[in-house]
Amino acid sequence: MIKHTPHPPRPRGLLIVMTGASGVGKGTLREQWLQDQDVFYSVSWTTRTARPGERPGQDYHFVDAGRFLEGIGQAGFLEHAEFAGNHYGTPRGPIEAALERGQDVILEIEVKGAMQVRQSSKEAILIFIMPPSLTELRRRLEGRATENPEQIERRLSRAREEVLEAHAFDYVVMNDDLTRAVADMHAIQRAERLKSNRLSPRVLSGIVDT
Amino acid sequence: MIKHTPHPPRPRGLLIVMTGASGVGKGTLREQWLQDQDVFYSVSWTTRTARPGERPGQDYHFVDAGRFLEGIGQAGFLEHAEFAGNHYGTPRGPIEAALERGQDVILEIEVKGAMQVRQSSKEAILIFIMPPSLTELRRRLEGRATENPEQIERRLSRAREEVLEAHAFDYVVMNDDLTRAVADMHAIQRAERLKSNRLSPRVLSGIVDT
Repeated sequence: MIKHTPHPPRPRGLLIVMTGASGVGKGTLREQWLQDQDVFYSVSWTTRTARPGERPGQDYHFVDAGRFLEGIGQAGFLEHAEFAGNHYGTPRGPIEAALERGQDVILEIEVKGAMQVRQSSKEAILIFIMPPSLTELRRRLEGRATENPEQIERRLSRAREEVLEAHAFDYVVMNDDLTRAVADMHAIQRAERLKSNRLSPRVLSGIVDT
Repeated sequence: MIKHTPHPPRPRGLLIVMTGASGVGKGTLREQWLQDQDVFYSVSWTTRTARPGERPGQDYHFVDAGRFLEGIGQAGFLEHAEFAGNHYGTPRGPIEAALERGQDVILEIEVKGAMQVRQSSKEAILIFIMPPSLTELRRRLEGRATENPEQIERRLSRAREEVLEAHAFDYVVMNDDLTRAVADMHAIQRAERLKSNRLSPRVLSGIVDT
């Protein structure tokens, strides 16, 4: 963690969106990457039921359809999407607050949701997590054993479309080697902090006035 | 160094331009950063005379004004600029060849030249090397003792203007701590390789067809 002196104020955080097919390993990659980092991980809302082992409030906020629609009604979502008959969404308020206090915000969401963030936020950095192959993705989905064969076929068919649209995102990280993929995530985060549009006039004044 | 198999072909290299005020430490930073890397370092042409210790063909190709203008006449420069009465330029041909064979190309040039590369090349990645302060920059220039006081004042006045225009570049790397600045350069290079627009259709086909 970087220590920040009171002046200049901590720069605005980065809004980083991880997306990619179900089974591509977003969760494990995220945990390794964010280890020891002081970031704000945005927990999505969903109307789907929890899978075995999923922790409410950590993996998702599990809510019923009524509560979910209420959230959208308050114009409170950065994105919301329907996937395989369930709703998913990301509340906007806590994200803006974290960015303002200088924390990086991490979203791990479905591809459709990520496309919406592209529209609703200019600052979002979109990272597509790529499977090494669809064969490998099938192997991972079957190994997970949380879906029936029909659901797996649907996911694979969707994954195929998504892979072919990878250009719509800012970065593509291939998740074939976890260590390398983690290092890729770190590099993106570090490089994005160095973008010139993040330089405040105050920092520039500090340099030329001394 | 990364080993490349014959198929898929090695992706096109990155064109990375380092710029910043005289005395900001671009040379040392570049040497540390590029250590053990298989890159193409583009040696600029210049009409100025060599400073003590400068190696012809390594620091610059030192040419006379006639030969320099001949080079421009063949439309062979990615950028050319006049600075403190001397001409500087970067030949285009060898750069394109290196990018094509998959080598990253590194340019270390004056700010005016970098601005021209912004215009003449869409793929160029521009990195502005920032001094910690103008006071520190003055100290470094005086320590170098290659310019007279009047030249130093002129360089500082120019540096001030350039710092205030840092937003014109893609990235800003503060050169106050060499180790950190070197890591910043590595992160930028790594992240840029992950940009989605560098994904070839061939790679995508390889993923979905397996």
